[in-house]
Amino acid sequence: PRIGTGLDVHAFDDASPLWLAGLHWPGEQGLSGHSDGDAAVHAICDALLSAAGLGDIGTIFGTDDPRLVDAHGDVFLRETLALVHAAGFRVGNVSVQIIGNRPKLSPRRAEAQSLLSGILDAPVNVSATTTDALGFTGRGEGVAALASAVLVPRDVAL
Amino acid sequence: PRIGTGLDVHAFDDASPLWLAGLHWPGEQGLSGHSDGDAAVHAICDALLSAAGLGDIGTIFGTDDPRLVDAHGDVFLRETLALVHAAGFRVGNVSVQIIGNRPKLSPRRAEAQSLLSGILDAPVNVSATTTDALGFTGRGEGVAALASAVLVPRDVAL
Amino acid sequence: PRIGTGLDVHAFDDASPLWLAGLHWPGEQGLSGHSDGDAAVHAICDALLSAAGLGDIGTIFGTDDPRLVDAHGDVFLRETLALVHAAGFRVGNVSVQIIGNRPKLSPRRAEAQSLLSGILDAPVNVSATTTDALGFTGRGEGVAALASAVLVPRDVAL
Ligand SMILES: [Mg+2]
Ligand SMILES: [Mg+2]
Ligand SMILES: [Mg+2]
Repeated sequence: PRIGTGLDVHAFDDASPLWLAGLHWPGEQGLSGHSDGDAAVHAICDALLSAAGLGDIGTIFGTDDPRLVDAHGDVFLRETLALVHAAGFRVGNVSVQIIGNRPKLSPRRAEAQSLLSGILDAPVNVSATTTDALGFTGRGEGVAALASAVLVPRDVAL
Repeated sequence: PRIGTGLDVHAFDDASPLWLAGLHWPGEQGLSGHSDGDAAVHAICDALLSAAGLGDIGTIFGTDDPRLVDAHGDVFLRETLALVHAAGFRVGNVSVQIIGNRPKLSPRRAEAQSLLSGILDAPVNVSATTTDALGFTGRGEGVAALASAVLVPRDVAL
Repeated sequence: PRIGTGLDVHAFDDASPLWLAGLHWPGEQGLSGHSDGDAAVHAICDALLSAAGLGDIGTIFGTDDPRLVDAHGDVFLRETLALVHAAGFRVGNVSVQIIGNRPKLSPRRAEAQSLLSGILDAPVNVSATTTDALGFTGRGEGVAALASAVLVPRDVAL
């Protein structure tokens, strides 16, 4: 098996809608960034790309790529998965943790997991934690996401 | 194999005794939080639950659960392990890193590893680092812990 | 398989040359620390040592070890690898992410990966991200690196 890890951070931005873990969160403060600022999806993509030896999301998805204007997480995940498959791997499972004060994940955890697992055709666990009021996440300045992924050869059973 | 990762953070709190990595640390500044603030154990539980697809410690252990009043790490770990087993997995190994200025781990590393490995019936490595005086850990405001775990099916040899 | 994870942080230091991911980066602000402050290599060593159950870099490499005066990443990696081998493992793959504003990794990613993979005799992916101007990395105070590694028994094929 191959493993990869990825961290991503985006700052809160009052002018943006919130997209996180592939979901739109109406009424929540949004995240800044190229594309939609979905730190959880970006961390997953970086974990998958790293496990497959394919670099990182910044090199794969150029910020001037016209496909990414207004793109959401599903676009990044499907493109990443295609590259992972082309490299000879499939996804074993993914673990992603959302680190911050908001939004509250638990009411929509199942929805997020179902969406992400469906796209990646593998178990995806979405967890959440706060940082006990410490650091930039604790001050409510932004959200971090930490992902790990395991890949297996495409032709080998789990 | 399934993998999971978890980060946990607790702020220092002069009014609390220190419990970390399942151990009591007499004479050291304690950590705040529900239960005993043991960031290392909480990070391990989150890594295990995530690998097993069981969500996170916040949803499994409600803060109003009477079993958790004055509970220490062993209670969280044993309950987490029972859920991991019930989901069809056993623990391959666990890696947890304590990030902060205090306490100094090395004199008690073997003791911590022995305790945690005994509970989980699997190798547990406990490491430590500082953040070179940067960030909330570098300023001595709290402790972070970063864990990764691998699970294997209960009926398959490592 | 055994997995391990490691984070390392070093502060920028105008008086030092920059060594990161095993490479010298002429013209870039350096990192402080014992040895050369190479957070990426130190995070990899911690991930490997943790996966092998060998503690951490701080206990393995004492700061007064004369071999480490002016040592660079290759010295740490080769010594770590020898310990991993002696413990009965070889490296499956390594994922390391450099978190900070500088240096820009992409022009030298292939060079870094080639160096690190050659030493460890296994795939090493080097990725990079920023923290959207948040936290100590976002303020340009230092660099963090996050690594994960998988080990397999020496006598078992991947
Ligand atoms: Mg991003
Ligand atoms: Mg906690
Ligand atoms: Mg270091």
